[in-house]
Amino acid sequence: MKLATLRDGSRDGQLWVVSRDLRHAVPALGIAPTLIAALEDWADVAPRLQALSDDLNAGQVPTAPAFDPAACMAPLPRASAWMDASAFLHHGRLMEKAFNTPPIPDFESVPVVYQGGSDDLRGPCEPMSFVSEDQQIDLEGEFGVILDEVPMGTPAQSALDHVRLVVQLNDWSLRGLAPYEMARGFGWIQAKPSTSFAPVAVTPDELGSGWRDGRVALRLHVAINDTEIGRAQGAAMHFGFDRLIAHCAATRRLTAGTILGSGTVSNDDPGAGSSCLSEVRVIEILAHGAPRTPFLAFGDRVRMEARAEDGSAPFGAIDQLVRPL
Amino acid sequence: MKLATLRDGSRDGQLWVVSRDLRHAVPALGIAPTLIAALEDWADVAPRLQALSDDLNAGQVPTAPAFDPAACMAPLPRASAWMDASAFLHHGRLMEKAFNTPPIPDFESVPVVYQGGSDDLRGPCEPMSFVSEDQQIDLEGEFGVILDEVPMGTPAQSALDHVRLVVQLNDWSLRGLAPYEMARGFGWIQAKPSTSFAPVAVTPDELGSGWRDGRVALRLHVAINDTEIGRAQGAAMHFGFDRLIAHCAATRRLTAGTILGSGTVSNDDPGAGSSCLSEVRVIEILAHGAPRTPFLAFGDRVRMEARAEDGSAPFGAIDQLVRPL
Repeated sequence: MKLATLRDGSRDGQLWVVSRDLRHAVPALGIAPTLIAALEDWADVAPRLQALSDDLNAGQVPTAPAFDPAACMAPLPRASAWMDASAFLHHGRLMEKAFNTPPIPDFESVPVVYQGGSDDLRGPCEPMSFVSEDQQIDLEGEFGVILDEVPMGTPAQSALDHVRLVVQLNDWSLRGLAPYEMARGFGWIQAKPSTSFAPVAVTPDELGSGWRDGRVALRLHVAINDTEIGRAQGAAMHFGFDRLIAHCAATRRLTAGTILGSGTVSNDDPGAGSSCLSEVRVIEILAHGAPRTPFLAFGDRVRMEARAEDGSAPFGAIDQLVRPL
Repeated sequence: MKLATLRDGSRDGQLWVVSRDLRHAVPALGIAPTLIAALEDWADVAPRLQALSDDLNAGQVPTAPAFDPAACMAPLPRASAWMDASAFLHHGRLMEKAFNTPPIPDFESVPVVYQGGSDDLRGPCEPMSFVSEDQQIDLEGEFGVILDEVPMGTPAQSALDHVRLVVQLNDWSLRGLAPYEMARGFGWIQAKPSTSFAPVAVTPDELGSGWRDGRVALRLHVAINDTEIGRAQGAAMHFGFDRLIAHCAATRRLTAGTILGSGTVSNDDPGAGSSCLSEVRVIEILAHGAPRTPFLAFGDRVRMEARAEDGSAPFGAIDQLVRPL
């Protein structure tokens, strides 16, 4: 099934069930008021949401209004936690070149993950305000999973049992601040503003062969002002979400409503382009000695949409304006 | 006023008002069900909580039961965010010696802050479970503040206007994992398990002269198995919470219910002892060539209690057992 959170003036929004083709949606009234409430009581709630989803997809909810992505908040506007990995090795290696930073120890054998702010996650069409273009505003196209409670010490072998939903996201980054904070060893506070999410969170079964080996095997199409810069394949993720979950739950439990991100989707194949501007720029530097593509400017639009082989967009699209504070 | 959250089976618990002497408490029924709800509507809710607090302190709530710290969750069991600084320079310098890590750039002029997990904060008397003693289990005695919404770009000059409550906490740390994660630049995921809080959150006015210049000017008494190891003074904090708030809100807004920590309370004065075992051990190494004090073992108890000059403990005590998972 496919779920979305519609704006209703509250911090957590209102849970809706969305049709498979993203054309119609219906509120989950009487089942669960919010997605976080659904996740905390998933065993009871999920079958009832599924029944509503089945009815909706069968055309048996004639009153269902048209689905409006612009009315959506992030699926979890206030998540229990937001942790983000860097699980595409090609991206990590390019970032080391881009920022002239030392290699991360054990990058290929032990996941790197940072803890981000989870309290102000943004919807797919909300304009994004930034303090200054000088901070080098960048996008990072990613996939992620939403978990139910994961006990401390859960091994990778059983970790995928805790994946309830799959999401698509933009981990906005300020590249002018990131290497400095990274060198200080405490992770990122200023270099990672609020993260944005595509409108629809989907259960893994909705992706069919697009969910395999704990990876989202779909191409993520990324465009700036209608010019596509990337179409990288998520299946190239070095660590699957099973390994990432086990890494994050090694010394503490994760609570229901935790979101875990893949890191920037990135492929060795030059034809796949890039899911962030820092990659585009370092590739230009390596080829030409200098970058040709600027970071984002106020007024730019960023669009991201994962596509299945049939051309459908399972999560809908992120489509946001970059603007000054 | 003084507030606590009592266990009621829900993730957010139930809000209670506690008497100044911590002897009695009364539920905030009809005012706000939870502390997070109170913080989100503080302008309306705070005067009503204050009136109940005044009645309680005047002995005009004869039905108020005895206050039981053991029934308390963390004041915010599920906070909007948990960010923790390292604002006592003496602690930071000792840690560099303890872990043989390079100096943090601009440590004296720019705060360092990490983002921690905020979804599973622990109450003052909950036993703490850890995977292995080999991970070098350590405590970190700290003060913190709970904020209402802080707009992006709020300067230090007005940042203290957003401090709603002051708290005392133990930022549990796994020293066997911390330097490794720090060297990888993404901050801490495994080295920082759940954080624990003293039972009572207090408005700044309750501290009198114990709240000044955006610092908690109280001694934090820290003991392991009834042996006191520290009594460091919070007034020695290098950056006040005003600077820390401005640092964290520089590129994003902070939402109501954000908790910001001071980092381990630490003084140059050798008589003040230490608020964590890593400090104790590195001081022993510098004096004797080797540490004499072990990290925590299963079965150890950790007690922390800030004391005012009159001997009172404004936040109550943290008193927790360390045990295996």
